[in-house]
Amino acid sequence: MQLDDELRALDAHYRSMPPVAAMDIAIAGRDVEADTLTLRAPLALNVNDKACAFGGSLVSLLTLAGWGLVTLRCHRLGIDADVFVADSEIRYLAPLYADLRATAALADGSGWAPFDQALRSRGRARVRIAASVPLPDGGIATTLRAGYAAIARG
Amino acid sequence: MQLDDELRALDAHYRSMPPVAAMDIAIAGRDVEADTLTLRAPLALNVNDKACAFGGSLVSLLTLAGWGLVTLRCHRLGIDADVFVADSEIRYLAPLYADLRATAALADGSGWAPFDQALRSRGRARVRIAASVPLPDGGIATTLRAGYAAIARG
Repeated sequence: MQLDDELRALDAHYRSMPPVAAMDIAIAGRDVEADTLTLRAPLALNVNDKACAFGGSLVSLLTLAGWGLVTLRCHRLGIDADVFVADSEIRYLAPLYADLRATAALADGSGWAPFDQALRSRGRARVRIAASVPLPDGGIATTLRAGYAAIARG
Repeated sequence: MQLDDELRALDAHYRSMPPVAAMDIAIAGRDVEADTLTLRAPLALNVNDKACAFGGSLVSLLTLAGWGLVTLRCHRLGIDADVFVADSEIRYLAPLYADLRATAALADGSGWAPFDQALRSRGRARVRIAASVPLPDGGIATTLRAGYAAIARG
């Protein structure tokens, strides 16, 4: 996939973190219309003792996908903000014996309007993101629901 | 710390997983009386874009600490079992600007007796574990509560 300048910068930002570089996590795609961000990582660098994807790598990929989605929203608002994950719930539904992909989107019942308004007016905002790792056959390996906070800089 | 043979084998097992080796996760201690297991990892290999501990590394350390505690329990029962994490909840309470440590123990309200009995009689059992990463000054950086399943082999 060709990444535009914004996604290339986000990809470089991910890879600047040593543990993320070690997992070889990269941006796989951005669907602007559906407002999703997809990351990928190779199984070989993220395998556990059972020859399937390591739980810590799955959580890292899921958490970073959500983090990237919120970061892209701050960019769209033209606000320079730090984005933090505050809490998350993970369900490991099935083992994954293939390369890892995670797609993040707004969680059901969440919307960007309250986030945008709070970040613009108070310089702080929270939002809930849902992300999942698909299985090659169409099922789901792992899901995450997480809360993120954005705090405007300066 | 000197590790006994059982902990040396568990430590080697952790390090056989490429992402765990990349994070340089190691056993820091085992308190048999309190029934806890503590893991550690250096900040330098687990740092994020804000110069503090990366969330994915924190979750990996916490999840592996719990996994190890359940694995040690299976050893004590003399049962060869696969241990899986099924679900978890994480709270990121404060940033950590120091090396990572995570200590796992039985979650409040959980006991080993039902786990032991189910694993012995049905070859499958579940248990809930609580783990946390301390701050150098005595506070808490991150907490995890997770459910693990053990399934006897063969």
